[in-house]
Amino acid sequence: MNDQIFETVVTTVAADGTPHVAPMGVRYTERHVVLMPFKPSTTLDNILATRHAVLNLVLDTRVFAGCVTGRRQWPLVAAERITGQRLAAALGHVELRLDEVGDDPQRPVLRLARVHEAQHGRFAGFNRAQAAVIEGAVLVSRLGMLAADKVDSEMRYLQIAIDKTAGAAEHEAWGWLVEAVARHRGTAKAAS
Amino acid sequence: MNDQIFETVVTTVAADGTPHVAPMGVRYTERHVVLMPFKPSTTLDNILATRHAVLNLVLDTRVFAGCVTGRRQWPLVAAERITGQRLAAALGHVELRLDEVGDDPQRPVLRLARVHEAQHGRFAGFNRAQAAVIEGAVLVSRLGMLAADKVDSEMRYLQIAIDKTAGAAEHEAWGWLVEAVARHRGTAKAAS
Repeated sequence: MNDQIFETVVTTVAADGTPHVAPMGVRYTERHVVLMPFKPSTTLDNILATRHAVLNLVLDTRVFAGCVTGRRQWPLVAAERITGQRLAAALGHVELRLDEVGDDPQRPVLRLARVHEAQHGRFAGFNRAQAAVIEGAVLVSRLGMLAADKVDSEMRYLQIAIDKTAGAAEHEAWGWLVEAVARHRGTAKAAS
Repeated sequence: MNDQIFETVVTTVAADGTPHVAPMGVRYTERHVVLMPFKPSTTLDNILATRHAVLNLVLDTRVFAGCVTGRRQWPLVAAERITGQRLAAALGHVELRLDEVGDDPQRPVLRLARVHEAQHGRFAGFNRAQAAVIEGAVLVSRLGMLAADKVDSEMRYLQIAIDKTAGAAEHEAWGWLVEAVARHRGTAKAAS
Protein backbone atom coordinates (compact mmCIF):
# COMPACT_ATOMS: atom_id res chain seq x y z
CA MET A 1 0.00 0.00 0.00
CA ASN A 2 1.27 3.45 -0.94
CA ASP A 3 1.88 5.51 2.22
CA GLN A 4 0.57 8.67 0.57
CA ILE A 5 -2.51 10.04 2.35
CA PHE A 6 -5.11 12.16 0.56
CA GLU A 7 -7.56 14.43 2.34
CA THR A 8 -11.02 13.77 0.96
CA VAL A 9 -14.63 13.86 2.13
CA VAL A 10 -16.50 10.60 2.65
CA THR A 11 -20.29 10.64 2.41
CA THR A 12 -22.32 7.76 3.81
CA VAL A 13 -25.97 7.12 4.61
CA ALA A 14 -27.47 5.39 7.64
CA ALA A 15 -29.82 2.42 7.21
CA ASP A 16 -32.73 4.92 7.40
CA GLY A 17 -31.18 7.07 4.63
CA THR A 18 -29.85 9.90 6.83
CA PRO A 19 -26.71 11.24 5.10
CA HIS A 20 -23.42 11.92 6.88
CA VAL A 21 -20.52 14.05 5.60
CA ALA A 22 -17.01 13.49 7.06
CA PRO A 23 -13.57 14.74 5.97
CA MET A 24 -11.19 11.79 5.95
CA GLY A 25 -7.59 10.99 5.03
CA VAL A 26 -7.56 7.98 2.68
CA ARG A 27 -5.00 5.73 1.02
CA TYR A 28 -5.19 4.10 -2.40
CA THR A 29 -4.13 0.68 -3.57
CA GLU A 30 -4.56 -0.66 -7.08
CA ARG A 31 -7.80 -2.42 -6.13
CA HIS A 32 -9.07 -0.47 -3.16
CA VAL A 33 -9.74 2.84 -1.48
CA VAL A 34 -8.64 2.32 2.12
CA LEU A 35 -10.49 4.11 4.93
CA MET A 36 -9.60 4.00 8.63
CA PRO A 37 -12.56 5.62 10.42
CA PHE A 38 -12.35 5.97 14.18
CA LYS A 39 -14.36 3.72 16.45
CA PRO A 40 -16.99 4.84 17.35
CA SER A 41 -18.02 7.04 14.40
CA THR A 42 -21.08 7.57 12.25
CA THR A 43 -19.05 6.89 9.10
CA LEU A 44 -17.99 3.49 10.44
CA ASP A 45 -21.52 2.58 11.55
CA ASN A 46 -22.98 3.64 8.20
CA ILE A 47 -20.48 1.71 6.09
CA LEU A 48 -20.90 -1.45 8.16
CA ALA A 49 -24.72 -1.09 7.90
CA THR A 50 -25.01 -0.26 4.18
CA ARG A 51 -21.73 -1.74 2.80
CA HIS A 52 -21.32 1.38 0.64
CA ALA A 53 -19.78 4.87 0.74
CA VAL A 54 -18.90 7.72 -1.62
CA LEU A 55 -15.41 9.21 -1.83
CA ASN A 56 -15.59 12.91 -2.76
CA LEU A 57 -12.58 14.70 -4.23
CA VAL A 58 -13.20 18.26 -3.12
CA LEU A 59 -11.35 21.53 -3.79
CA ASP A 60 -13.84 23.74 -1.95
CA THR A 61 -12.11 23.87 1.42
CA ARG A 62 -15.24 25.24 3.10
CA VAL A 63 -16.40 21.64 3.41
CA PHE A 64 -13.28 20.71 5.44
CA ALA A 65 -13.31 23.88 7.59
CA GLY A 66 -17.10 23.65 7.92
CA CYS A 67 -17.15 20.07 9.18
CA VAL A 68 -14.66 20.83 12.00
CA THR A 69 -16.62 23.96 13.02
CA GLY A 70 -20.12 22.48 13.20
CA ARG A 71 -21.21 23.06 9.58
CA ARG A 72 -22.04 19.56 8.36
CA GLN A 73 -24.96 20.38 6.04
CA TRP A 74 -23.62 20.43 2.48
CA PRO A 75 -25.68 20.12 -0.71
CA LEU A 76 -25.82 16.48 -1.81
CA VAL A 77 -26.72 14.72 -5.05
CA ALA A 78 -27.86 11.07 -5.34
CA ALA A 79 -25.09 8.63 -6.28
CA GLU A 80 -25.42 7.06 -9.73
CA ARG A 81 -24.82 3.34 -9.17
CA ILE A 82 -25.14 2.78 -5.43
CA THR A 83 -27.58 3.83 -2.72
CA GLY A 84 -25.83 6.89 -1.38
CA GLN A 85 -25.16 10.60 -1.79
CA ARG A 86 -22.24 12.59 -3.13
CA LEU A 87 -21.30 16.21 -2.45
CA ALA A 88 -22.67 18.61 -5.07
CA ALA A 89 -19.35 20.51 -4.75
CA ALA A 90 -17.19 17.47 -5.59
CA LEU A 91 -14.66 17.90 -8.39
CA GLY A 92 -15.01 14.17 -8.82
CA HIS A 93 -16.42 11.26 -6.87
CA VAL A 94 -15.97 7.51 -6.54
CA GLU A 95 -18.82 5.22 -5.54
CA LEU A 96 -17.53 2.44 -3.29
CA ARG A 97 -18.57 -1.02 -2.08
CA LEU A 98 -17.12 -2.49 1.12
CA ASP A 99 -14.84 -5.39 0.26
CA GLU A 100 -12.75 -6.22 3.36
CA VAL A 101 -12.83 -5.22 7.04
CA GLY A 102 -9.69 -5.45 9.17
CA ASP A 103 -10.93 -4.92 12.70
CA ASP A 104 -9.00 -2.83 15.22
CA PRO A 105 -9.98 -1.53 18.67
CA GLN A 106 -9.43 2.11 17.54
CA ARG A 107 -9.33 2.37 13.74
CA PRO A 108 -10.63 -0.57 11.69
CA VAL A 109 -9.17 -0.77 8.16
CA LEU A 110 -11.94 -0.77 5.55
CA ARG A 111 -11.01 -1.72 2.00
CA LEU A 112 -13.60 -0.57 -0.51
CA ALA A 113 -13.82 -1.42 -4.22
CA ARG A 114 -14.53 1.23 -6.88
CA VAL A 115 -17.99 0.68 -8.37
CA HIS A 116 -18.19 3.89 -10.40
CA GLU A 117 -16.15 7.09 -10.89
CA ALA A 118 -17.18 10.45 -12.35
CA GLN A 119 -15.50 13.82 -12.93
CA HIS A 120 -17.40 17.07 -12.45
CA GLY A 121 -14.66 19.69 -12.71
CA ARG A 122 -10.98 20.26 -13.40
CA PHE A 123 -7.97 20.71 -11.14
CA ALA A 124 -6.70 24.26 -11.72
CA GLY A 125 -3.35 24.05 -9.92
CA PHE A 126 -2.14 24.11 -6.32
CA ASN A 127 -3.64 26.94 -4.29
CA ARG A 128 -1.53 27.67 -1.20
CA ALA A 129 -4.56 29.10 0.64
CA GLN A 130 -6.50 25.86 0.14
CA ALA A 131 -3.58 23.97 1.68
CA ALA A 132 -3.51 26.47 4.57
CA VAL A 133 -7.23 25.88 5.24
CA ILE A 134 -6.62 22.10 5.30
CA GLU A 135 -3.79 22.59 7.83
CA GLY A 136 -5.92 25.01 9.85
CA ALA A 137 -8.78 22.49 9.91
CA VAL A 138 -6.39 19.84 11.26
CA LEU A 139 -5.32 22.28 14.01
CA VAL A 140 -8.92 23.16 14.90
CA SER A 141 -9.87 19.48 15.10
CA ARG A 142 -7.12 19.08 17.75
CA LEU A 143 -7.60 22.28 19.76
CA GLY A 144 -8.21 20.35 22.96
CA MET A 145 -4.81 18.63 22.65
CA LEU A 146 -2.57 21.50 21.51
CA ALA A 147 -0.85 24.30 23.42
CA ALA A 148 -2.32 27.74 22.67
CA ASP A 149 1.02 29.25 21.60
CA LYS A 150 1.64 26.42 19.15
CA VAL A 151 -1.81 26.97 17.60
CA ASP A 152 -1.21 30.75 17.44
CA SER A 153 2.18 30.50 15.77
CA GLU A 154 0.94 27.94 13.21
CA MET A 155 -2.18 30.00 12.43
CA ARG A 156 0.04 33.09 11.94
CA TYR A 157 2.24 31.15 9.51
CA LEU A 158 -0.77 29.80 7.58
CA GLN A 159 -2.33 33.28 7.43
CA ILE A 160 0.44 34.37 5.03
CA ALA A 161 -0.76 32.00 2.30
CA ILE A 162 -4.36 33.08 2.94
CA ASP A 163 -3.45 36.75 2.51
CA LYS A 164 -1.46 36.10 -0.65
CA THR A 165 -3.46 33.49 -2.57
CA ALA A 166 -7.01 33.02 -1.20
CA GLY A 167 -10.22 33.52 -3.14
CA ALA A 168 -13.62 34.16 -1.54
CA ALA A 169 -14.20 30.49 -0.58
CA GLU A 170 -10.85 30.20 1.22
CA HIS A 171 -11.38 33.51 3.05
CA GLU A 172 -14.76 32.28 4.28
CA ALA A 173 -13.35 28.90 5.36
CA TRP A 174 -10.38 30.54 7.13
CA GLY A 175 -12.75 32.92 8.95
CA TRP A 176 -14.63 29.92 10.40
CA LEU A 177 -11.36 28.45 11.68
CA VAL A 178 -10.17 31.71 13.26
CA GLU A 179 -13.59 32.05 14.92
CA ALA A 180 -13.39 28.48 16.25
CA VAL A 181 -9.98 29.13 17.83
CA ALA A 182 -11.33 32.30 19.52
CA ARG A 183 -14.44 30.44 20.72
CA HIS A 184 -12.29 27.64 22.15
CA ARG A 185 -10.19 30.21 24.05
CA GLY A 186 -13.34 31.84 25.44
CA THR A 187 -14.64 28.47 26.62
CA ALA A 188 -11.27 27.44 28.05
CA LYS A 189 -11.01 30.75 29.91
CA ALA A 190 -14.57 30.50 31.30
CA ALA A 191 -13.79 26.98 32.54
CA SER A 192 -10.57 27.95 34.33
CA MET B 1 -10.25 39.24 -11.74
CA ASN B 2 -10.39 36.61 -8.99
CA ASP B 3 -7.54 37.14 -6.51
CA GLN B 4 -7.02 33.42 -6.11
CA ILE B 5 -3.54 32.35 -7.23
CA PHE B 6 -2.80 28.82 -8.48
CA GLU B 7 0.68 27.30 -8.59
CA THR B 8 1.20 25.78 -12.02
CA VAL B 9 4.03 25.11 -14.46
CA VAL B 10 4.27 27.15 -17.66
CA THR B 11 6.10 25.64 -20.62
CA THR B 12 7.23 27.84 -23.49
CA VAL B 13 9.54 27.50 -26.47
CA ALA B 14 12.06 29.99 -27.82
CA ALA B 15 11.91 31.09 -31.48
CA ASP B 16 14.48 28.33 -32.23
CA GLY B 17 12.28 25.70 -30.52
CA THR B 18 14.29 25.34 -27.27
CA PRO B 19 11.76 24.49 -24.53
CA HIS B 20 11.65 26.16 -21.12
CA VAL B 21 9.89 24.89 -17.98
CA ALA B 22 8.97 27.39 -15.22
CA PRO B 23 6.76 27.06 -12.12
CA MET B 24 4.44 30.07 -11.99
CA GLY B 25 1.55 31.40 -9.90
CA VAL B 26 -1.34 32.26 -12.23
CA ARG B 27 -4.78 33.86 -12.01
CA TYR B 28 -7.89 33.01 -13.99
CA THR B 29 -10.57 35.23 -15.46
CA GLU B 30 -13.52 34.04 -17.49
CA ARG B 31 -11.71 34.74 -20.76
CA HIS B 32 -8.05 34.56 -19.82
CA VAL B 33 -5.23 32.87 -17.99
CA VAL B 34 -3.21 35.73 -16.50
CA LEU B 35 0.57 35.37 -16.15
CA MET B 36 2.92 37.91 -14.57
CA PRO B 37 6.43 36.71 -15.44
CA PHE B 38 9.34 38.69 -14.09
CA LYS B 39 11.37 40.95 -16.36
CA PRO B 40 13.83 39.72 -17.50
CA SER B 41 12.89 36.03 -17.81
CA THR B 42 13.03 33.29 -20.43
CA THR B 43 9.28 32.70 -20.07
CA LEU B 44 8.55 36.36 -20.88
CA ASP B 45 10.96 36.41 -23.83
CA ASN B 46 9.51 33.18 -25.22
CA ILE B 47 5.87 34.27 -24.96
CA LEU B 48 6.58 37.63 -26.58
CA ALA B 49 8.53 35.87 -29.36
CA THR B 50 6.09 33.00 -30.10
CA ARG B 51 2.78 34.47 -28.78
CA HIS B 52 1.99 31.07 -27.22
CA ALA B 53 2.49 29.10 -23.99
CA VAL B 54 1.22 25.96 -22.29
CA LEU B 55 -0.26 25.97 -18.78
CA ASN B 56 0.42 22.64 -17.04
CA LEU B 57 -1.67 21.53 -14.06
CA VAL B 58 0.78 19.34 -12.18
CA LEU B 59 0.44 17.20 -9.04
CA ASP B 60 3.97 15.76 -9.22
CA THR B 61 5.70 18.23 -6.90
CA ARG B 62 9.14 17.06 -8.08
CA VAL B 63 8.72 19.49 -10.99
CA PHE B 64 8.32 22.45 -8.57
CA ALA B 65 11.11 21.35 -6.20
CA GLY B 66 13.27 20.37 -9.17
CA CYS B 67 13.00 23.72 -10.96
CA VAL B 68 14.15 25.66 -7.84
CA THR B 69 17.07 23.25 -7.28
CA GLY B 70 18.51 23.22 -10.79
CA ARG B 71 16.51 20.30 -12.26
CA ARG B 72 14.76 21.89 -15.24
CA GLN B 73 14.79 18.94 -17.65
CA TRP B 74 11.37 17.30 -17.53
CA PRO B 75 9.87 14.96 -20.12
CA LEU B 76 7.81 16.94 -22.63
CA VAL B 77 5.16 16.06 -25.18
CA ALA B 78 4.25 18.17 -28.25
CA ALA B 79 1.20 20.40 -27.76
CA GLU B 80 -1.85 19.45 -29.84
CA ARG B 81 -3.04 22.72 -31.38
CA ILE B 82 -0.17 25.19 -30.97
CA THR B 83 3.58 25.11 -31.53
CA GLY B 84 4.77 24.25 -28.06
CA GLN B 85 5.41 21.53 -25.50
CA ARG B 86 3.53 20.33 -22.45
CA LEU B 87 4.84 18.38 -19.46
CA ALA B 88 4.40 14.62 -19.80
CA ALA B 89 3.56 14.58 -16.07
CA ALA B 90 0.70 17.10 -16.37
CA LEU B 91 -2.64 16.06 -14.90
CA GLY B 92 -4.12 18.43 -17.45
CA HIS B 93 -2.88 21.20 -19.71
CA VAL B 94 -4.20 24.31 -21.43
CA GLU B 95 -2.74 25.56 -24.70
CA LEU B 96 -2.67 29.35 -24.71
CA ARG B 97 -2.40 32.23 -27.20
CA LEU B 98 -1.21 35.67 -26.10
CA ASP B 99 -4.11 38.12 -26.24
CA GLU B 100 -3.09 41.27 -24.29
CA VAL B 101 0.13 42.62 -22.80
CA GLY B 102 0.04 45.16 -19.97
CA ASP B 103 3.61 46.35 -19.68
CA ASP B 104 5.28 46.96 -16.33
CA PRO B 105 8.93 47.65 -15.41
CA GLN B 106 9.04 44.51 -13.20
CA ARG B 107 6.14 42.15 -13.95
CA PRO B 108 4.20 42.68 -17.20
CA VAL B 109 0.64 41.31 -17.11
CA LEU B 110 0.09 38.82 -19.93
CA ARG B 111 -3.49 37.77 -20.70
CA LEU B 112 -3.66 34.57 -22.70
CA ALA B 113 -6.70 32.98 -24.33
CA ARG B 114 -7.46 29.25 -24.06
CA VAL B 115 -6.97 27.56 -27.43
CA HIS B 116 -7.31 23.95 -26.26
CA GLU B 117 -7.63 22.03 -22.96
CA ALA B 118 -7.03 18.36 -22.20
CA GLN B 119 -7.16 16.13 -19.11
CA HIS B 120 -4.64 13.35 -18.57
CA GLY B 121 -5.38 12.25 -15.00
CA ARG B 122 -7.63 12.74 -12.00
CA PHE B 123 -7.29 14.76 -8.82
CA ALA B 124 -7.17 12.27 -5.94
CA GLY B 125 -7.62 14.65 -3.00
CA PHE B 126 -5.45 17.10 -1.09
CA ASN B 127 -2.09 15.67 -0.08
CA ARG B 128 -0.55 17.66 2.79
CA ALA B 129 2.96 16.59 1.76
CA GLN B 130 2.45 17.99 -1.74
CA ALA B 131 1.44 21.31 -0.18
CA ALA B 132 4.52 21.16 2.07
CA VAL B 133 6.79 20.68 -0.96
CA ILE B 134 5.18 23.69 -2.66
CA GLU B 135 5.81 25.81 0.48
CA GLY B 136 9.35 24.44 0.75
CA ALA B 137 10.02 25.32 -2.90
CA VAL B 138 8.86 28.89 -2.22
CA LEU B 139 11.30 29.04 0.75
CA VAL B 140 14.19 27.65 -1.30
CA SER B 141 13.55 30.14 -4.10
CA ARG B 142 14.00 32.93 -1.52
CA LEU B 143 16.94 31.56 0.50
CA GLY B 144 19.06 34.64 -0.25
CA MET B 145 16.41 36.92 1.31
CA LEU B 146 15.36 34.93 4.40
CA ALA B 147 16.93 34.58 7.85
CA ALA B 148 18.35 31.10 8.51
CA ASP B 149 16.28 30.54 11.68
CA LYS B 150 13.06 31.44 9.86
CA VAL B 151 13.88 28.91 7.12
CA ASP B 152 14.77 26.26 9.71
CA SER B 153 11.59 26.67 11.74
CA GLU B 154 9.36 26.64 8.63
CA MET B 155 11.14 23.58 7.21
CA ARG B 156 10.70 21.80 10.58
CA TYR B 157 6.98 22.60 10.52
CA LEU B 158 6.58 21.40 6.91
CA GLN B 159 8.53 18.22 7.69
CA ILE B 160 5.59 17.01 9.82
CA ALA B 161 3.27 16.75 6.80
CA ILE B 162 6.05 15.06 4.81
CA ASP B 163 6.53 12.43 7.53
CA LYS B 164 2.81 11.78 7.85
CA THR B 165 1.47 11.89 4.30
CA ALA B 166 4.22 11.78 1.64
CA GLY B 167 4.59 9.16 -1.07
CA ALA B 168 7.84 8.40 -2.91
CA ALA B 169 7.59 11.46 -5.21
CA GLU B 170 7.12 13.89 -2.32
CA HIS B 171 9.98 12.32 -0.33
CA GLU B 172 12.27 12.75 -3.34
CA ALA B 173 11.16 16.37 -3.91
CA TRP B 174 11.56 17.20 -0.22
CA GLY B 175 15.06 15.68 -0.21
CA TRP B 176 16.11 18.04 -2.99
CA LEU B 177 14.86 21.03 -0.99
CA VAL B 178 16.61 19.96 2.24
CA GLU B 179 19.80 19.46 0.22
CA ALA B 180 19.47 22.94 -1.35
CA VAL B 181 19.13 24.56 2.10
CA ALA B 182 22.25 22.73 3.33
CA ARG B 183 24.18 23.69 0.17
CA HIS B 184 23.16 27.33 0.60
CA ARG B 185 24.42 27.27 4.22
CA GLY B 186 27.72 25.77 3.08
CA THR B 187 28.15 28.46 0.43
CA ALA B 188 27.13 31.24 2.82
CA LYS B 189 29.60 29.95 5.43
CA ALA B 190 32.44 29.66 2.90
CA ALA B 191 31.78 33.27 1.79
CA SER B 192 31.79 34.71 5.33
